[in-house]
Amino acid sequence: MPHSASNPSASNPAETNSPETWSQRFESALHPAIARFNASIGFDIQLIEYDLTGSQAHAKMLAHTGIIPADEGEQLVAGLEQIRQEYRAGHFTPGIEAEDVHFAVERRLTELVGDVGKKLHTARSRNDQVGTDTRLYLRSQIQTIRQRLREFQTVLLTLAEQNVETLIPGYTHLQRAQPLSLAHHLLAYFEMAERDWQRLGEIYQRVNVSPLGSGALAGTTFPIDRHYTAELLNFGGVYANSLDGVSDRDFAIEFLCASSLIMVHLSRLSEEVILWASEEFRFITLKDSCSTGSSIMPQKKNPDVPELVRGKTGRVFGHLQGLLVLMKGLPLAYNKDLQEDKEALFDAVLTVQSCLEAMTILLREGMEFRRDRLLEAVSEDFSNATDVADYLATKGVPFREAYNLVGKVVKTSLAQDKLLKDLTLEEWQTLHPKFEADIYDAIAPRQVVAARNSYGGTGFDQVRQALKSAQHRILNGG
Amino acid sequence: MPHSASNPSASNPAETNSPETWSQRFESALHPAIARFNASIGFDIQLIEYDLTGSQAHAKMLAHTGIIPADEGEQLVAGLEQIRQEYRAGHFTPGIEAEDVHFAVERRLTELVGDVGKKLHTARSRNDQVGTDTRLYLRSQIQTIRQRLREFQTVLLTLAEQNVETLIPGYTHLQRAQPLSLAHHLLAYFEMAERDWQRLGEIYQRVNVSPLGSGALAGTTFPIDRHYTAELLNFGGVYANSLDGVSDRDFAIEFLCASSLIMVHLSRLSEEVILWASEEFRFITLKDSCSTGSSIMPQKKNPDVPELVRGKTGRVFGHLQGLLVLMKGLPLAYNKDLQEDKEALFDAVLTVQSCLEAMTILLREGMEFRRDRLLEAVSEDFSNATDVADYLATKGVPFREAYNLVGKVVKTSLAQDKLLKDLTLEEWQTLHPKFEADIYDAIAPRQVVAARNSYGGTGFDQVRQALKSAQHRILNGG
Amino acid sequence: MPHSASNPSASNPAETNSPETWSQRFESALHPAIARFNASIGFDIQLIEYDLTGSQAHAKMLAHTGIIPADEGEQLVAGLEQIRQEYRAGHFTPGIEAEDVHFAVERRLTELVGDVGKKLHTARSRNDQVGTDTRLYLRSQIQTIRQRLREFQTVLLTLAEQNVETLIPGYTHLQRAQPLSLAHHLLAYFEMAERDWQRLGEIYQRVNVSPLGSGALAGTTFPIDRHYTAELLNFGGVYANSLDGVSDRDFAIEFLCASSLIMVHLSRLSEEVILWASEEFRFITLKDSCSTGSSIMPQKKNPDVPELVRGKTGRVFGHLQGLLVLMKGLPLAYNKDLQEDKEALFDAVLTVQSCLEAMTILLREGMEFRRDRLLEAVSEDFSNATDVADYLATKGVPFREAYNLVGKVVKTSLAQDKLLKDLTLEEWQTLHPKFEADIYDAIAPRQVVAARNSYGGTGFDQVRQALKSAQHRILNGG
Amino acid sequence: MPHSASNPSASNPAETNSPETWSQRFESALHPAIARFNASIGFDIQLIEYDLTGSQAHAKMLAHTGIIPADEGEQLVAGLEQIRQEYRAGHFTPGIEAEDVHFAVERRLTELVGDVGKKLHTARSRNDQVGTDTRLYLRSQIQTIRQRLREFQTVLLTLAEQNVETLIPGYTHLQRAQPLSLAHHLLAYFEMAERDWQRLGEIYQRVNVSPLGSGALAGTTFPIDRHYTAELLNFGGVYANSLDGVSDRDFAIEFLCASSLIMVHLSRLSEEVILWASEEFRFITLKDSCSTGSSIMPQKKNPDVPELVRGKTGRVFGHLQGLLVLMKGLPLAYNKDLQEDKEALFDAVLTVQSCLEAMTILLREGMEFRRDRLLEAVSEDFSNATDVADYLATKGVPFREAYNLVGKVVKTSLAQDKLLKDLTLEEWQTLHPKFEADIYDAIAPRQVVAARNSYGGTGFDQVRQALKSAQHRILNGG
Repeated sequence: MPHSASNPSASNPAETNSPETWSQRFESALHPAIARFNASIGFDIQLIEYDLTGSQAHAKMLAHTGIIPADEGEQLVAGLEQIRQEYRAGHFTPGIEAEDVHFAVERRLTELVGDVGKKLHTARSRNDQVGTDTRLYLRSQIQTIRQRLREFQTVLLTLAEQNVETLIPGYTHLQRAQPLSLAHHLLAYFEMAERDWQRLGEIYQRVNVSPLGSGALAGTTFPIDRHYTAELLNFGGVYANSLDGVSDRDFAIEFLCASSLIMVHLSRLSEEVILWASEEFRFITLKDSCSTGSSIMPQKKNPDVPELVRGKTGRVFGHLQGLLVLMKGLPLAYNKDLQEDKEALFDAVLTVQSCLEAMTILLREGMEFRRDRLLEAVSEDFSNATDVADYLATKGVPFREAYNLVGKVVKTSLAQDKLLKDLTLEEWQTLHPKFEADIYDAIAPRQVVAARNSYGGTGFDQVRQALKSAQHRILNGG
Repeated sequence: MPHSASNPSASNPAETNSPETWSQRFESALHPAIARFNASIGFDIQLIEYDLTGSQAHAKMLAHTGIIPADEGEQLVAGLEQIRQEYRAGHFTPGIEAEDVHFAVERRLTELVGDVGKKLHTARSRNDQVGTDTRLYLRSQIQTIRQRLREFQTVLLTLAEQNVETLIPGYTHLQRAQPLSLAHHLLAYFEMAERDWQRLGEIYQRVNVSPLGSGALAGTTFPIDRHYTAELLNFGGVYANSLDGVSDRDFAIEFLCASSLIMVHLSRLSEEVILWASEEFRFITLKDSCSTGSSIMPQKKNPDVPELVRGKTGRVFGHLQGLLVLMKGLPLAYNKDLQEDKEALFDAVLTVQSCLEAMTILLREGMEFRRDRLLEAVSEDFSNATDVADYLATKGVPFREAYNLVGKVVKTSLAQDKLLKDLTLEEWQTLHPKFEADIYDAIAPRQVVAARNSYGGTGFDQVRQALKSAQHRILNGG
Repeated sequence: MPHSASNPSASNPAETNSPETWSQRFESALHPAIARFNASIGFDIQLIEYDLTGSQAHAKMLAHTGIIPADEGEQLVAGLEQIRQEYRAGHFTPGIEAEDVHFAVERRLTELVGDVGKKLHTARSRNDQVGTDTRLYLRSQIQTIRQRLREFQTVLLTLAEQNVETLIPGYTHLQRAQPLSLAHHLLAYFEMAERDWQRLGEIYQRVNVSPLGSGALAGTTFPIDRHYTAELLNFGGVYANSLDGVSDRDFAIEFLCASSLIMVHLSRLSEEVILWASEEFRFITLKDSCSTGSSIMPQKKNPDVPELVRGKTGRVFGHLQGLLVLMKGLPLAYNKDLQEDKEALFDAVLTVQSCLEAMTILLREGMEFRRDRLLEAVSEDFSNATDVADYLATKGVPFREAYNLVGKVVKTSLAQDKLLKDLTLEEWQTLHPKFEADIYDAIAPRQVVAARNSYGGTGFDQVRQALKSAQHRILNGG
Repeated sequence: MPHSASNPSASNPAETNSPETWSQRFESALHPAIARFNASIGFDIQLIEYDLTGSQAHAKMLAHTGIIPADEGEQLVAGLEQIRQEYRAGHFTPGIEAEDVHFAVERRLTELVGDVGKKLHTARSRNDQVGTDTRLYLRSQIQTIRQRLREFQTVLLTLAEQNVETLIPGYTHLQRAQPLSLAHHLLAYFEMAERDWQRLGEIYQRVNVSPLGSGALAGTTFPIDRHYTAELLNFGGVYANSLDGVSDRDFAIEFLCASSLIMVHLSRLSEEVILWASEEFRFITLKDSCSTGSSIMPQKKNPDVPELVRGKTGRVFGHLQGLLVLMKGLPLAYNKDLQEDKEALFDAVLTVQSCLEAMTILLREGMEFRRDRLLEAVSEDFSNATDVADYLATKGVPFREAYNLVGKVVKTSLAQDKLLKDLTLEEWQTLHPKFEADIYDAIAPRQVVAARNSYGGTGFDQVRQALKSAQHRILNGG
């Protein structure tokens, strides 16, 4: 039995650089400014619950494999649980001297359970430990974000259901192009969020892999059981290569990319809400619960939420970029640089979660579509011009001739400050004898929308089908 | 029959902005500098084969659904095929006046097949057309990149198989930590490439979705069959929302993120190769076929390939960032900004493909590991110190006592410029009576590696298992 | 005389890695794929004129210092001039085999002037040579960009002069806040461009420093005169440290940052132009010379120029990021990675120049402000509410009381769909007895603008002063 | 006198959106999650001292111009000073309910001085107020950073002075190229820092401009004196356009770019220190005060400081990118998005300051150059090969012939595992009769360095001149 209980804290691996453990060869203390510069306790304290959970699994494995006696394993697990309670009660607040959360926990543990506490780090390194903590943290946050995405989709869906027959101008180049069902417009965001949700599900699989047992870089000489700890921690798999296990940060970068895409989508919706709330569009009314005013300009209701969401977009892009830069050109295996992955990750998680929450609240209770104004909008432009050409074409007029004719009609109407619907039947018939009274139906906004009935189009039938499909996915996909 | 063959080029959707088609309402010509500024033909010509293929499918669908007569469908398909031949023969080279590749093709088609050529754009817009082209292009490139990843993995695997028992120093903080099997080190890169391969497979599913038939933004009034064109083009699915179909660029950003990660991995390997090739490391010899010299310094062999690969990393990160910025805050649906997605994509594709190819060649035939030097390296340091402590621990000495003792030994040895293996048995036994002659075996580099036999570790048995698993994945995963 | 004419091409420094010069020690040829991967001729040919100019100065210096005889110096200068003529005439088109522009020129030179051509590279390395070329290129481009900025400012100024008394709504949060003089609004962009112009002037000083003579990294053993070449090339200074001279790329990054800021400013203006051109704002009419239409929707005039400019913003940001990533962590001195600096730089230069040109054309001849519509806009909202409170305050009503009262008035008016100007004098006086007939003047948009007469404010007097100052700066600052 | 003391808090401008001031028209309270989302007090409390200083200047100006009575101005100034004392004593700690620091201060002020406190915001908006605070903050931080740069340069200079004649291998492509004076190598970093220092000086001019008095966007109707407040606050100038004044963030982006360049330079030095500290280079010894060890591997001294500095590089690049994204496409004038500029700025300031400090300490007391090892390094390679060719060339042998001959010598020596200095005089003379005993001097590393005596080169005379120039600049430039 090469690895017995007689070697407390034999920690084969170990990059623990706390003065207490590595002071043997070191003769002078760390410069105080350097100690501050190196310390991560200021932010990695956020990982504490994951660290405790990971350590408990590790302790159980040490006992399970006989590396330490069973009763020592129990003492360790209990001691870690006590620290968790102390932390939750606000009684465990390690300071800068603790250097990092791992060391802070180990020290407190030894205070609580005595020398056996020093055995916790047996067959483990801080390199694989921090990797484990970060993955436990991130997989939990991903679940929360996916839940927030579902709530966001649900509110979009509810709004869409209420607005199948509400018309809204459709834009390309921010120019009015063709009228749309408002539901159709909202469902475009549903689809984006659906991809976000799916993407995070795939990334989750790569986050949910255990590096625990990779040691400092090379594995360990102890007869550990990595699959056992992975199972205790509900990991879906185990890193197959110890060097990769301690130095891989793909999962964090992938997450930041998925987060950036969520922000892209939210920023697009934000831009639209800001436009819609302007005096010029007036497509929505902002409610008091989600907007702020000015101390002096009583006419103002500022769309702070979408502005802030749009503003926070760059922040998440920046974190993505920051982590890519961090990883560029790092030789194997662990390098201290990797300590810098955490704050970017934490801030991106917080940002995405709060932006999704704020936008969901805004859509649900912070704004109201002005149907009167929307109807007015789709009725006051030339976005039905295409349909005039189609009308003639279906009556046998060659399309090119029809198109040219409509071009001229629009030009003339613009000059007279008229819309197509304002032309009299006589005027229509002067333009072309094929026009009949049903031209007014053909160019009515409702009909223009209804006619675009190809799969995925804005036609009402299509939209109703799309709604059903969306509901189905939400109910079954989650 | 509302949509008959009598409406040539009825193109419901259509954002075609070529002078010929939209000149009706416009009175003066485009300013030449603006025309140049708007034109995309300079780069989107790269999409031509995909554009032709997409148009052929569209033409077949138009005939299939009766929107145009069968014989006209055949004429269109044949005409498009002829353009493909002309292009391949170098006879079709549209200039700036063509504005973009779509219009260049349409015009040439009309020259070839007459007025029926004008029907090609029926029930289609350039918005959904360019989206289709880009996806056809990208899915093809992804397949090529995945193939290149497999070649890269294969050469890593071959090298690993040859070097299971070759030792190499393992580093953390670029400080020697513990010796490794070279195969184990190489397999870390195999694992990174495996994730890249897997990731691209997932992204492929989201690239391989057809936006064709989304029209300008709202769908079309023609009775098109989007699933039919999707099937002809081997798309795995169809966009469920037309607004999303014309304005989604998630797939491009996801691809750029996956590409950035490939570059992260290649840059890490590049950094190592550059280090290995230095005078100080001398772990490899660069061969003439993959390195260059200096006109004056005959001792130099420059590792250009890994330097360039490392240098190209930022380029791909930049494209990712560029596209994220592009999409931020764009209101629905299509905006001209989206034209800017292509050059970034094209350059990233080219960069990733050429870097993978160059690194594969470099590993396969451009460098050679110097086993003598590697052996020397792992024999000349204190990376076996941990194992001395383990030795005592297994003989019953409490680990902390063992550890402290080793700390002192190292300090003394350093002062005397000795290594642990240089200590005589007497010296060992003076340090602690438990040392016996087998201490020399225990600290021999080969034994130090062999002992790290936990799952995923560098122990030779583990490495041999890892090789088998890797071979299996390459054979079955592709 | 240690360095005589007898050592042709003695090129002390030299990182020339062309087969012809470094084939002595190399036994096998470069792999063709690697040769392609390494080659830079595809893009660095753009530097050719700068390379020729730099080489001519170098040749003159070699003769001036006696390192080569005077007549050889003249031959080199003449030969280089001949290559320039060949290039301009389209007769000098080196292919991939030339590897890079420097080698292509040197080879052609030797064809033209014989063995003396081999002396050109004496006391020079490609490391300092390419640095010189890049700086000559960039300083020239910066001058062009500054000129374009002046043209952009001039058109802004002209428009502003025409629109001092044109009113436009002023926005915060895209909500109407207070009416503005249109000239004031335009001058905000003038100020941004002024900073761009100033910034580029400062950066120019750091671009315009000569690295020539730094050699490969350490200087040279030849008695060169770096100040002489610097003077011939109109450099403002000389790098004081040869390692810094060959490896500094700060100047390129600074330029990309300044370019990014130009794009930020243009993107902001673009966003506004796109908004102004929408159906909802209708503040401008786009002219045919600068916008495009749709093949089917005759009502559309797309603001392609500002959309493309906005879209190109991310591209320049991406290049900035790419170059930062390139430089991160590179050890001294020259590394092949640095070859990757050029394409980013070239593309950013082209992008910024063409965007400035396009926006200048757009402002000058591609759009027209609709003064009727602007006047209507400032007359139809509550952006004069502040002035009602001020009115009462100046009549002695405590401001808080006045403010509260106005809040109520606005709320009531909104409910009745009335504006403040629609209230009768009786209604005003019912609200507060201090209101008199002059209230209508006080809240007239013109008066509201005129009253904001603090320095830098939108009051007409201030704006006229600002115009004068702007004119003065353009005339004297350039 | 249109703007008398009778209008307390007449705050013409004002985007104050605190419930207390804008609750008049708003009927329901802000959703608590939205209130949290909007609040900035969590980070902008860092601006408090700048906010107090700015407000004191504003209050003095209000009195100076007669907008408020002199005694009220004094009360305001005194009250603000009291808040400063409370804050410093830890007694002023506003929570989330305060929304932002400006409102927190205003509320406390009113508690302290009564209703006159409400007059502070007269003729000011939070838009110009926060711009003022940020500039006051940043200009102070820039001064600190420039001071840190000077300390960093000073330690480089001291080290350089001690090491003029210490030789170190010079690298290109991380291959040994030519030996260098260590002082020359260190001075390259001095030059980079010099540019950083200069750049920040220029940026300072654009940071140090007062937006105070720009109001919400349009200026104010009060007869304020912007030059008076600018003078009180030691601003170098005043924004000439109020719209630009409230919406310009160029200065922050410029600062982040300069910060990114500082990080580029520090990351390059960090990379070198990490290499130097490796077993393979052994050019330096890390001291205990600046490095950490491992709990188990006693041979290890990890270069944490340069690793962390290198790791923090991406973080600053990310902030730069984030702010560029933030600004892209924002229409004039103030938008809530701008609130997001602060955290990026604060973190970049902190990062740059702490990295400069840590690297300065590291150079000063945390590492030691191993001159023995450096001498050994420059003596054990072929970096003197160029000088053999030069030797022959100066003896009249045509350079090409000399070069070819040296190529062969190197190849033969390599095969025999010999260095050039190991060749006997007979061997030299067999190679070429011109070789004489002085060849050994010519290729001695010291001579090789000394010979590169061109301006900016590594020759000792040049280095001594460079040192003098550097000292001069530090003494006079600051």
